[in-house]
Formats: sequence, structure tokens, C-alpha cells
Amino acid sequence: MNFASDNASPAHPSVIEALATANEGYAMPYGADPTMERVRTKIRDLFEAPEAAVYLVPTGTSANALALACYCPPWAAIFCHRNAHIEEDECGAPEFYTNGAKLTLVDGEDARMTPEALDAAIAFTGRGGIHNVQRGMVSITNSTENGAVYTPEMVGALSGVAKEYGLPVHMDGARFANALVAAEASPAEMTWKAGIDVLSFGGTKNGLMGVEAVVLFDPEKAWEFEMRRKRAGHLFSKHRYLAAQMDAYLSDDLWRAMARDANASARRLSEGILEIPGASLLHPTEANAVFAAWPRDGHRRAQENGAHYYLWPMNQSLEGPGDEMLAARLVCSWSTTAEDIDRFLDLIRG
Amino acid sequence: MNFASDNASPAHPSVIEALATANEGYAMPYGADPTMERVRTKIRDLFEAPEAAVYLVPTGTSANALALACYCPPWAAIFCHRNAHIEEDECGAPEFYTNGAKLTLVDGEDARMTPEALDAAIAFTGRGGIHNVQRGMVSITNSTENGAVYTPEMVGALSGVAKEYGLPVHMDGARFANALVAAEASPAEMTWKAGIDVLSFGGTKNGLMGVEAVVLFDPEKAWEFEMRRKRAGHLFSKHRYLAAQMDAYLSDDLWRAMARDANASARRLSEGILEIPGASLLHPTEANAVFAAWPRDGHRRAQENGAHYYLWPMNQSLEGPGDEMLAARLVCSWSTTAEDIDRFLDLIRG
Amino acid sequence: MNFASDNASPAHPSVIEALATANEGYAMPYGADPTMERVRTKIRDLFEAPEAAVYLVPTGTSANALALACYCPPWAAIFCHRNAHIEEDECGAPEFYTNGAKLTLVDGEDARMTPEALDAAIAFTGRGGIHNVQRGMVSITNSTENGAVYTPEMVGALSGVAKEYGLPVHMDGARFANALVAAEASPAEMTWKAGIDVLSFGGTKNGLMGVEAVVLFDPEKAWEFEMRRKRAGHLFSKHRYLAAQMDAYLSDDLWRAMARDANASARRLSEGILEIPGASLLHPTEANAVFAAWPRDGHRRAQENGAHYYLWPMNQSLEGPGDEMLAARLVCSWSTTAEDIDRFLDLIRG
Amino acid sequence: MNFASDNASPAHPSVIEALATANEGYAMPYGADPTMERVRTKIRDLFEAPEAAVYLVPTGTSANALALACYCPPWAAIFCHRNAHIEEDECGAPEFYTNGAKLTLVDGEDARMTPEALDAAIAFTGRGGIHNVQRGMVSITNSTENGAVYTPEMVGALSGVAKEYGLPVHMDGARFANALVAAEASPAEMTWKAGIDVLSFGGTKNGLMGVEAVVLFDPEKAWEFEMRRKRAGHLFSKHRYLAAQMDAYLSDDLWRAMARDANASARRLSEGILEIPGASLLHPTEANAVFAAWPRDGHRRAQENGAHYYLWPMNQSLEGPGDEMLAARLVCSWSTTAEDIDRFLDLIRG
Repeated sequence: MNFASDNASPAHPSVIEALATANEGYAMPYGADPTMERVRTKIRDLFEAPEAAVYLVPTGTSANALALACYCPPWAAIFCHRNAHIEEDECGAPEFYTNGAKLTLVDGEDARMTPEALDAAIAFTGRGGIHNVQRGMVSITNSTENGAVYTPEMVGALSGVAKEYGLPVHMDGARFANALVAAEASPAEMTWKAGIDVLSFGGTKNGLMGVEAVVLFDPEKAWEFEMRRKRAGHLFSKHRYLAAQMDAYLSDDLWRAMARDANASARRLSEGILEIPGASLLHPTEANAVFAAWPRDGHRRAQENGAHYYLWPMNQSLEGPGDEMLAARLVCSWSTTAEDIDRFLDLIRG
Repeated sequence: MNFASDNASPAHPSVIEALATANEGYAMPYGADPTMERVRTKIRDLFEAPEAAVYLVPTGTSANALALACYCPPWAAIFCHRNAHIEEDECGAPEFYTNGAKLTLVDGEDARMTPEALDAAIAFTGRGGIHNVQRGMVSITNSTENGAVYTPEMVGALSGVAKEYGLPVHMDGARFANALVAAEASPAEMTWKAGIDVLSFGGTKNGLMGVEAVVLFDPEKAWEFEMRRKRAGHLFSKHRYLAAQMDAYLSDDLWRAMARDANASARRLSEGILEIPGASLLHPTEANAVFAAWPRDGHRRAQENGAHYYLWPMNQSLEGPGDEMLAARLVCSWSTTAEDIDRFLDLIRG
Repeated sequence: MNFASDNASPAHPSVIEALATANEGYAMPYGADPTMERVRTKIRDLFEAPEAAVYLVPTGTSANALALACYCPPWAAIFCHRNAHIEEDECGAPEFYTNGAKLTLVDGEDARMTPEALDAAIAFTGRGGIHNVQRGMVSITNSTENGAVYTPEMVGALSGVAKEYGLPVHMDGARFANALVAAEASPAEMTWKAGIDVLSFGGTKNGLMGVEAVVLFDPEKAWEFEMRRKRAGHLFSKHRYLAAQMDAYLSDDLWRAMARDANASARRLSEGILEIPGASLLHPTEANAVFAAWPRDGHRRAQENGAHYYLWPMNQSLEGPGDEMLAARLVCSWSTTAEDIDRFLDLIRG
Repeated sequence: MNFASDNASPAHPSVIEALATANEGYAMPYGADPTMERVRTKIRDLFEAPEAAVYLVPTGTSANALALACYCPPWAAIFCHRNAHIEEDECGAPEFYTNGAKLTLVDGEDARMTPEALDAAIAFTGRGGIHNVQRGMVSITNSTENGAVYTPEMVGALSGVAKEYGLPVHMDGARFANALVAAEASPAEMTWKAGIDVLSFGGTKNGLMGVEAVVLFDPEKAWEFEMRRKRAGHLFSKHRYLAAQMDAYLSDDLWRAMARDANASARRLSEGILEIPGASLLHPTEANAVFAAWPRDGHRRAQENGAHYYLWPMNQSLEGPGDEMLAARLVCSWSTTAEDIDRFLDLIRG
């Protein structure tokens, strides 16, 4: 019963198999191997973007920070939600990679920016001429840190605001697959057709060991991306092992199958929790994360019986009246089983 | 017959097995898993350094750049050989990570700095007070980019110069194993006993998929290292897959066995080449790389029959008189076979 | 009638005289001249801080950014008011100089942070361990961007919060003199006795051509400051001309006299405006800036007759009903005359 | 008798007068004053460059570093002479401002690069594809750190090499006036007609208090320059005092007159020294600096009688045999008098 994070889950067995296969003999380093060629084609096909530049990096933070650095000058602002991963969980990586761009925070329920709040933030930033930082770019996290999903229409509305100001738009898709299957959209609809210029296309949280693709729909910045990646130490010499993971991910629609399983697990968990008297959701369960509150007694039973997850916020205490509601974050992955969920629900129901 | 680089070679099969084993069930992310705990202990034991801080990163460039950034302020110089990997092959990663430290280049045969040249470079840098960049640190590559090995005595002589100026010393050990077995030294003798403060302990070129350890013999900078690693996107969430590789590497002395094999292959290759009339070595063959010249005809035959390696410098041409000497770099790895070597030698001998 | 900014005003005539005097003969460059020695002593005496390190730089932005960079690592947060000059008017200089520290914004009336809001912001930032940026330092602007003044007690309350977290505290004193005379405090009471570690001690806005002192009450960071200043191009070779300005500033209490005049002008202006029916203050007039609203007709008459100042916010329009209230910012300096004020008041009264 | 540096000399009296004049009344800040408008026009006229973007900054280091940062990406190399000011005397400012570009050093007598050496350095840098830093730009110092002058033809030859590789060219003209009058060239001939893209046009060393212009002959990078300047704290609020200095400098050809005087003083000094038996020049005296060796006895007499200058290198000792030759650097400025020179020559002749 581990709902601590999707990054606590294992990789899919076919990923390990792919690594074993990729390990035969010699291969050209630095992405010049045939597997990477295949991956590039698959991603271009998948996104209906035959010109896109496609790169692999090992972590979500490197994907995001490199993507942002290619599109935002040091003296500009990146507009993102107040709870975005790039703001809260990357220890300043965007600032490091951009050489000091400023993250300007936008509000909105469920960690989703509203077009109105985004517009206000951009308008405010640009009012001071040379004295302010300039308007730089917009970054949208999908699914959000609170487990909500932007539909293509919502993405398009935000991009529309950005485009009015001439700003490029990044999507942090560490959980892109979860958002996509939830929205029942195509990769193209969710990205470039909705105004996205550059995508961090996550794999790690969704069943890989550690690979994210960065997709630049307009290849104009491709060379700059390569320079920044190399200079950051994110160009792998034995690149075939990144490519092999992504190749397995994109084979037989594995990536969407895993996301569907994770989302379905979250729904099952969410619905089960809501059956508890007094229980409630902090955010709607739209992807693979559940934010819910239930009585402290239930938390105690679960944790005493080995369930792993975070109270949310973390500084709540298990000590205290048993019927008080405590909130928690529960994250499902492809490897979450119905048995684990049901056992967990039994425990928290008491 | 692939001698292009040790990074074109596959990982050792036991590394893939270790990944498969590590893939069972859930694991705490970000290095809090038990495998990492075991790796830390193994490296501390191996280096007789019970206090050392030990971290894993995916690439040699990230290992070097992070290590340098912890010990060299932005306004100082890193003294390294003119042909060091950090100068020639990392696209400015040390400058990026240090926020602009200056690499000051030192000469010496076979890409080995001499203590005299190092001393002169340090003395010169410090002469201008506040106007110059300051004296920062020293970085030693072992084995060198030209396949030469510093013995512990040689390392100690360079460190001794550095210490006279109060400077910390880094060792770029992307090929540390090759140097160590060549020098028949212990890890401690080659590092902290010889004055090394921080080591990039390579695994990727020597049979792993993509892992390097950074060993800080004095843990004072440990927290800063963690901050810099996280902020650079080099902290893996599913960190167990880095740890598993390194764990396999250090089991049953695999890492030294692979390095011994690679070095032995290089010797066999080197000796075979020298039997060719007119052939010569550009640098002594001390580790796993051979820098040698032989007649152009031999190059043509080898390359027409599928041998992969780089002419050195690369801009030489296969077109021209057949008896003219052309130089090349040939790199061996754990996976190089005697058969491949002998076949190659047959081809270049004609 | 120029109330656009204190930086539109001229330097005090004695400053020009001091420059002429300093221009005699040769002088050691880079701050090694005797005038700088005198300035250092004067500032140490003034602040009752005999150990303080004292440096001169040409602009407020350089003073702030260099001071912050010495005390805040790249992976940490600088806590400041949402309307602080370092956030709104320096085009990302703090981010540039710190190599990417994050400005975390704190609320409070009149651009004054409250201790409660500061405490909440710091507590929130530190909750995420290695994933968040770390708690770095606090920066207080006195007088504030809205013309309010922190008393030493208020400064001490904020510093107290900072110290609970072990954080250093910077004061942006671009208008330090205005705050000091308003609070009737001594320089020491307003700074190190109230917990300030490093001060940007402004001169430019208060009657100099372009000089700010940075005072590090603990000289531990002095050498680092010198390195950063040099490397940023802010170490003047003909440094005597900075020193001469500051020397004149500190002679015969000129600096406080000018600030008293500016503050008195602001009070006269503020009181005059409030006599207009319907007029009101946006912020209390505590230093040399007035934020007030009065009828549009009055604005029209003033601007048609050559008065210079900014509507606040700037995007308001002079077109529209004459009795509607429009807000403005009016800044006084040492050179503001009672005649100008009275003429202006006559115009806006109609 | 002060030959320590041209930055130890005073400003020309007309500069102080100009400051006094500029100090009348209010002026728009940040360069929007009429004096700056006049300066811009004067510089455009002077350089026959009606489209050029013209900015003022306070120091040579800021002029150079900002200019370089606009034209060289972080992952590229700036090719300059081994003894260039940007390499030796700016404490890493180019690296800081460019976010880590690499200075790649080129040799040549008298601190003048040769086209051949420049070509070799550029060719070598570009050989490694993505692994090397890329070819970025060329920076030429005129007059050089050794007092030599590039003629327009020499500049054109270097620019020609740069242009073959598509690289922009910067001129560090901290002593541009000295070079120009020595070469008897027009400003246009020495710069854009000879392939210069951006010029640091020095004033400080040649009779100003502290102002340099940066001239971007193609205004494409103008906005970026403004952003970088602001963000670095080099945009003066009371900008009129920079403009007034530059205005005086360019009036009545004062700038060239001062440079001619300085150069003539250097010649007089140089010729006088060469009359001493055994004396010699280390570098030809082409601008305002003399590098010469004469007997130690002469040095002792001069220094005992109050002459200020640097032995070159500085670590030579006045102790030792009186007839041994010691080398020195002597720098003249507009304020050097024939009396001082002759008195100095008398002393060193003995």
C-alpha cells in the first residue's frame, strides 16, 4: 500500500526487457544510435508534428528547466501557478538554467491557472518598461500538482492569453499521459493545436526508470537546446539506455495503458474514501492523485498497518481526536493494484 | 571491432540483472532507498573514508561540474591540463555550474600536468590582487585524456603544489578504475592520501549504463552538493536505478576486473601495432587507450572492413600515399575481445 | 514643479564643489585614496560600528544586488515585500547577482511587511526539504516604496523573525536618510542594533550624483563583496569621485539636512492636498513621497502648467469627468521649494 | 611624477565644469535627458554611423562585459589576446555577464593578436561539435595592454578572420583615443569599416571621471543591451552626469587632444629612457604607455624621489646590483607634463 508518490513505483517490466535488448554490442553514443532515431519518429508521429525536435533527458526537472531556458531570457518572467512543480519542487532549477528569470505566480483552484488571473499577472508585469522584468513565457502543468486536468480547451484559453502578448507556452507534462487519457484528447490536440510551443513529455512517473522527452514543436531552438543540455551534463554518452526506455514506453500504447490504470486506481480510491462519513475531497480526482480528508482514526490504522502516503499539508499530526478530519495526498501509478486499494480502504474505514 | 570510445560499449550483464532485481516493488525515492545506503557504505569502505559524503549522478560532466562548483567560487580559476575533459569536452559545464569560474590551462606531456607548470600557472594567476580572478582549485584527470596514468606519487606532487597555495584538489576519475589498476594503488592511496578532496568516481565508461559517484572526502560541502545537484536536475526520483548499477559495479570487484580487462586489451593492441614497421605511439599506453600511428594503407583496410575508431586529430584524410603514417585513438573497454583485437591487427598489418 | 522622482533632482552644490576639489592632482585608484579612508571612518563613526566594512558603488541596484549576493546562496529565497524595489524595479538584478535566488513576496500595508506575514512566508518556504529553495535572507526597504517608514522597533520585529530562522537581514536604504530623520533614530538604532546585517546606504536619491555605500556590519563577507563588486564592473578606477561625493554628503550633517527638507516638503504638500474637498491619501506621508488622490480637474490644470509627476497607477487617464478622483505619486527632494509646492497646490485646488 | 596608470590622473577641468552646468534644475532620469540626446548624435556623427545604438556606462569593465554578453552565448568562446584586459584585469566579469562563456587565449607580440594565431585558435575550438564550446566572438584591445596600436588594416585582418567563421567582433577601446590618434585614422575607419560590430569607447582613462560609451553599430541588440545594463545595476538614474562628461569629452575635439598629449608624453619619455646606456624597450611605444628597462640604480633614485610607477613584472626587487636592468611600465595621461617627464628622466639617468 504505497501511495506516497508515483516515483516510488517500479518501472514496467517491459522497460527492463528493453534495456536488456539495447545492451547488445556497440552503439553510437550521444543519441546517434538507431533506437533514438526510432523514438524520434514515433514521437513525431504521435504528435502529428513531423518537424518537431525531440530530445531525451533523465529527469523532469532537467526537462522543464532546459525547455524554459530556451524560451525565456534571463530578464523576463515565467508565469506559472503558485503551486507549480517548477516553483515549489525544483529548488530553483528554472532560475539556475535561465540565469535568473523570475517566476511570477498565478492563482487558481486545484492548481489550475485561470485565463483571467494569467492575463492580470502578465499585464501587471509589463507595466514598468525597462525597470521591471519583461514578460517572458507561460508554463502550464498538466495534470496539475493537485491532480486536476486541463482540457485542450482550457489549455487553448491560457495559450490564447499568452499569444496576445506574444509569449511562448511550455507544458510541464511530467504527468502528461494521465492528463491526456483523462481528457480523452490526442497528443496534438493537447499540445501544439492548443498553442503549446514546448512540452516536457514525462515518462518517469508513469512507468519508466528515468526518462523524459522534450518536444520542441518548432525546431528553431533545437541547437540551443542541444547546447544547453550538453553544458548541463544531461547529454548521456550511453544514450541508448534512455532511448530504449522511451521506445518501450511508446510501444503498443503502453504509456497510455499505464496512465489509464493509474487514473482508474485513483478513481477507485477516491470513490471509496467518499463513502466514509465526513470524508471529502480537497480537489477533484481527475488524474492519478487523490487529495482527500477522512477521520484521523482511519489514518492511524492505515499507517500502523504499513500504508505509505503523505498527510497534506505534511505538518498535521496523527495525535489528537480520532474523529477529526485530516487531509492526505494519495498518488497511484500503473503498479497500484485493486487489492492494495481495497485493503487500504478497509483500514481507513475501520 | 569498435575502438571509437569506451562509451560505445555495452553495460556489463550483471548491471542489467541488478536493475531487474532493483525493480521489485516500491522504493523510497531520491536516494533514501536501502540500495543507496549499501552503496554509500561500500564506497566509504573501499576508500577507507568513513566520513565521506557519497552521491550518485548520471554523467561524468555532471559529476565534474557539480564537484567543481562546490569548491571553486565564481571569481576564481580552476587549474587543469590544456586537454582536460572539463576544458575540451563539456561545452562549458564547469563555467555554467560555477557561475563563471575560469579554466586556466596547464601544459604537460601526455595530458599530464607537471608540478612545475602547475606551480607557475597558480603563481601567475594570483599576482594581480583584486583585478585577476583568484586562485581557486586544481583538477586532475586520471587516467588522462591521452591514456596516461598519474601514480599516487604524481598526484601527491600536484596536490602538494595546490596545498602550498591552500587550494582544494579535484580528481576527474571518469577512468579512475583504469588508472587505479594500472598504478596498482588502493583507492585511498590514489585519492585522499594523495591530497584529493573530491573525486568523480566513474562508472559509465567502465561498464555501467550511466552512473558516476561523487565522493567528498570531507563532508563539509555535502549539503551544498545536494542543493546544487537537485537544482541542476541531477537528483533522480527513482534513484534506486542509479544505486543498483553502482552496487553491481562494486560487487565481487567487478569494477576493477573490467578495468583490468580494458587495460590488458589496450596493451595487446599497442604491442601489436608497434610490430608494424614505422608504427609508433603518440603517448605511452598506460590505461585503456592507445594513441598510435601506422601507415595509411592499414587504416584504409581496417575501416573498409568495419573497424570503428577516430583518426587523431580527426581532420586527417584516408586519401593519400599508403605508406604515410596516420595517427589514431583506439579505446578499449571491458567488452573488447582478443579476437577483435587480433582481427584488427591483421587488417592494419596488411 | 517636478515631483516625478527624487532622481530627477540635481545634486547639492557642495557635491559639485567636492568633486572639483577632489580633482586636484593624482590619486591612487580603486579606493586606495585618502578621501575613501576618511569616508570609511566617517561611516563607521556614524553607525558606531568600528569593524564595519564599507564600500561605495554607483547605483542603488548595484548596492542591493551585491549585498544580497553576499548573503544569499543561489538555491535560497529572499523574503521581501511584494512592492519592494528589488522585486519591481531592478529588472531581475538580485536574481542575476545571486545566480538565481528566488524573491518570495510578503504582504503588508504601505509596502511594509508585517512580522506575521514574514513569518508565514518563511515557514512555508522551508517545509519541503531539498525540493524547495531554502530559506535565505530578508530584505527590508526603508523608507518603503509607498513612502512609509519602519521605526527601529518595527525593523527589530522583522529581524527578530528572521533571526528565529537564522537568516541574515538586509536593509535597502535608498531612502535611508528620509526614514531615519522621520523616525528620529540614530543610524545604529535603525540598523545593527535592530538586527540589520548589511545596509544599502543611499545617497543618489538624496542629493548626490550617483553614490551608495554598502555597509557590512560584520566584515566577514568583505572580501567576497570586493570580488563581486569588481567582477560586476562596479569598482571604479577613479574611485576618488565616488568618495568625494560621499564625503560631502556626510559633512556638516548635510545628508540629514537634505532628508529633513525633503520630508518637510512632502508634509507640506500632503497637508495642502488634504485641504481639497474629497482628496485623500493612499498611504500615510511619513517620508518624502506623497501618494494622494484629488479631482481630475486639478491634475489637468497642474499638468497643463508644467507640473511633472506620475499618476499612480500610471494607466489612469486625464480624460473624463473633472470631479473624479485620480491618484498620483509626488516625490520631494532636498531641492523642492516651498514656492513650487504652493504654486502646485494652487493649481490643483483650482 | 605619477606614471602608475592613466586612471590615477585627474579629470580634465572642463569635465567638472560640464558637471556643474548639468546640475541645474531637474532632468529626466535614466538617459532621457537632452544632454544624452546630444551625446548620441555626436557619437553617431563622429563614427558616421547614423543607426548606431549608443549607451553610457561608468566603467571599462561594465562596457566590455555588457558588450560581450550581447554577442556571445554562454556556450561559446571569446577569442582574445592572452594579455587582454578582459582576461587579466576584470576578475571574470566577461564570464559573469555571459553566464559562463570561455575566454580562449591567442598569442602575439606586444599583446597584439596575429591573424594566423587567431585563425588557429578559432579552427581548433570548433573541431569537436557539440562537445566543445562553440565559436563565439572575437575581442580586440586597441591600444593593447602593452601599449601597441592596431592600425585599421590590422583590425581589418583580424575581423576578416572572424567573419570567415561568421563571428562578431568587439573592440575594447578603453584607450581607443590613444590608438586612433596614433594610427591617424578616423573613428569609422578604425571600427565598423574595419569590421567591428561593437565598441567600448573609453573615456575614463583619457580624462573623464568615469564614463565609457558602448557603441553597437548594428542596433539589433539595442534592447538586449538595455536589459542587461539595467539588470546589472549600470543604468544610472541621474544619468545626466554621465552624459555631461561625455558631452564635454566630445566638444572641441577634447578627447583627441588629450590622447595626443598623452601619446606625445609617452614618446618623450620613451626617447629619453633610450638615451640611457643599456636601456631598452620591451614593447614599441605607440600609444601612451612605455614599457622599458633601465638600470636598477635609476629606479632607486626615481622612487626615492617620489616617482610612482610599477615595475613590470611587479615582483622585481629594487635590492641588488645597481647596473642590472629592471623593467617598468610607465603610463602617461593628458595631465602628464613635460616638466615631470624631464625631472623623471634626470632622476633615472643619475
